[in-house]
Amino acid sequence: MNNRHHPELSPDQDMPLFLELTKPVLPIDTNAQEQARARQRQLTKPPGSLGRLEQLAIDLAGWQGNSLPRLERVRVRVFAADHGIASEGVSAFPQVVTVEMIRNFARGGAAISVLARRAGANFRAINLGTVNPLPKADANHPAVRNLQLAPGSANICRQPAMDQPLLVAALAAGAEEAVDCDLFIGGEMGIANTATTAALTSALLALPATQTVGTGTGVDDVGLDRKRDAVNRALALHQPHCHSALETLRRLGGLEIAALTGAYIAAAQRGIPSLVDGYICTAAALIACRINPGVRDWLLFGHRSQEPGHQHLLAALNADPLLDLGLHLGEGSGAATALALLHSACDLHCEMATFSEADISGSAS
Amino acid sequence: MNNRHHPELSPDQDMPLFLELTKPVLPIDTNAQEQARARQRQLTKPPGSLGRLEQLAIDLAGWQGNSLPRLERVRVRVFAADHGIASEGVSAFPQVVTVEMIRNFARGGAAISVLARRAGANFRAINLGTVNPLPKADANHPAVRNLQLAPGSANICRQPAMDQPLLVAALAAGAEEAVDCDLFIGGEMGIANTATTAALTSALLALPATQTVGTGTGVDDVGLDRKRDAVNRALALHQPHCHSALETLRRLGGLEIAALTGAYIAAAQRGIPSLVDGYICTAAALIACRINPGVRDWLLFGHRSQEPGHQHLLAALNADPLLDLGLHLGEGSGAATALALLHSACDLHCEMATFSEADISGSAS
Repeated sequence: MNNRHHPELSPDQDMPLFLELTKPVLPIDTNAQEQARARQRQLTKPPGSLGRLEQLAIDLAGWQGNSLPRLERVRVRVFAADHGIASEGVSAFPQVVTVEMIRNFARGGAAISVLARRAGANFRAINLGTVNPLPKADANHPAVRNLQLAPGSANICRQPAMDQPLLVAALAAGAEEAVDCDLFIGGEMGIANTATTAALTSALLALPATQTVGTGTGVDDVGLDRKRDAVNRALALHQPHCHSALETLRRLGGLEIAALTGAYIAAAQRGIPSLVDGYICTAAALIACRINPGVRDWLLFGHRSQEPGHQHLLAALNADPLLDLGLHLGEGSGAATALALLHSACDLHCEMATFSEADISGSAS
Repeated sequence: MNNRHHPELSPDQDMPLFLELTKPVLPIDTNAQEQARARQRQLTKPPGSLGRLEQLAIDLAGWQGNSLPRLERVRVRVFAADHGIASEGVSAFPQVVTVEMIRNFARGGAAISVLARRAGANFRAINLGTVNPLPKADANHPAVRNLQLAPGSANICRQPAMDQPLLVAALAAGAEEAVDCDLFIGGEMGIANTATTAALTSALLALPATQTVGTGTGVDDVGLDRKRDAVNRALALHQPHCHSALETLRRLGGLEIAALTGAYIAAAQRGIPSLVDGYICTAAALIACRINPGVRDWLLFGHRSQEPGHQHLLAALNADPLLDLGLHLGEGSGAATALALLHSACDLHCEMATFSEADISGSAS
């Protein structure tokens, strides 16, 4: 492949960034997978009877290069940022809620805080950039990393969400967080980010806004019309220039979505699997896979969101999420809920007795 | 209702049993449910955004009569028994495996042992009756209750599974176990019990064996034909006499299925919700609800089994299970896997901050 004509990078994008993002992901250890598959056949149960829990254990074995994988170090990072499109009246909540929720993440009162705590995960919220400054006490909280790269992204109805340096900084900020763990879970918070994600999804998959715009945090019918209209205006302005996934992200994305994209790519390059959350995270995952297709092998999908656009992203990624519980909160909450299934899969795989250990008669067949 | 003509009891069945099984279940505390629903609206998330996790917390509140429900005392009981129909060659495993698996449950090597341990649940295996005697060391294991009511149930291709005293004893054994907990999970083990369950399901729902017989623990095509044939012969013999759910259970059921039926009924009468597992447990749940319709209000369903007959039982119970992961192991493993979702629902409900506690701006709408 000629790097200068890589289809997912615009010619005007810089070569160091390109080289970083397209660096190969680590290979899956198929030997460890095969050993894990063999062990599954020896455990005291009919072959295949643990369904997807068996495959999860085999996946983890391949990722960890260990036929007896463990899930002790789970890292949960919630990326927060504001979105200029909020000024178009597309959200049910005022923009100040982004900053207020960062405080709630830090103090342990948000859904993702509760779920991360139960799972014993390493948890932190990253402020990429908000319109309202984060109060000093919150900015200095040990569970917060306050980057404030910009006062949110620009209003995509009028201009690109980010310039190139800001995009690079947000990608890098995400990449820095996907380290030192057995599993990475990204989450997001940002008033109006389902509008942003709808624009991204429409542009990436050539879908009309009617199929990608949902009620998000709960806009009413009038708000939903405004949201569709804003997404359509953003698409009209930018779609002709969206020649690559990265340029689509720069023009129609948001800081936290760029950070998630950077995190998923870097995690796969470092041999860390990611458990992807709902609509917004899956848009970032699709961009990551468009930029670097090998990333797909390192992704699991936690849940099917109630946001209508999510199904299209999942289909594009050939992804079948673990849970379907009607969640649509974001923050990484669906992935963190699904994490319990990975723990169960891991425990069953490592702790069940084999037929010979338990001295149990095998199948006659 | 005139007790002597209760449609789910045959005239020849005894009145004390009838009175015990049809004793009303405890009422749901709708006041606690309403308080829990109000709390869900105050938690720092868009209303409804936690989907089914919100309803689970509201359900638990109604069952416990506590708007801040807890799930600390979970009781897992695996009921084991042998089935005479095994002699028709309907299972991939030899009948000795029932006893061998009881030992595996006790020693902690089975799937349900691992899952119960992770959940911190109170776990025990109950031997209702096996063809091969349980070795003394296993019979005396603290995690085993060795009742041995009979050397398994009779071959339903030739005679009723149980006589009336044995049915009563098995129902009572199950009922005794559904005590002292916030949630009851029943599981089962018994070589050939998917054949038994297929016969029950066909009789209860007037379905042909082609729709209720699956591969169980993994019979091959020849075995599947034998299994269908055996179920058809059992149905031909007994179906004309299956005038009630209880008589259907006596003629076509098994000791562990009767125990589960007794457990689900007694749990609801004592105000204990049950989390129902897969195909076999759901058949017992349907019988329990036919005998005492109020039981349905106290049931949650853990997972959708890969056994083809399960969907019909779920539809008859208007049940939408929490998980769909292709499991078909039994033992209570699907319910125990789903238990993590109830813990998450409970934690989120009780530990998330409210909008006022977190000083977060509410929805504009």
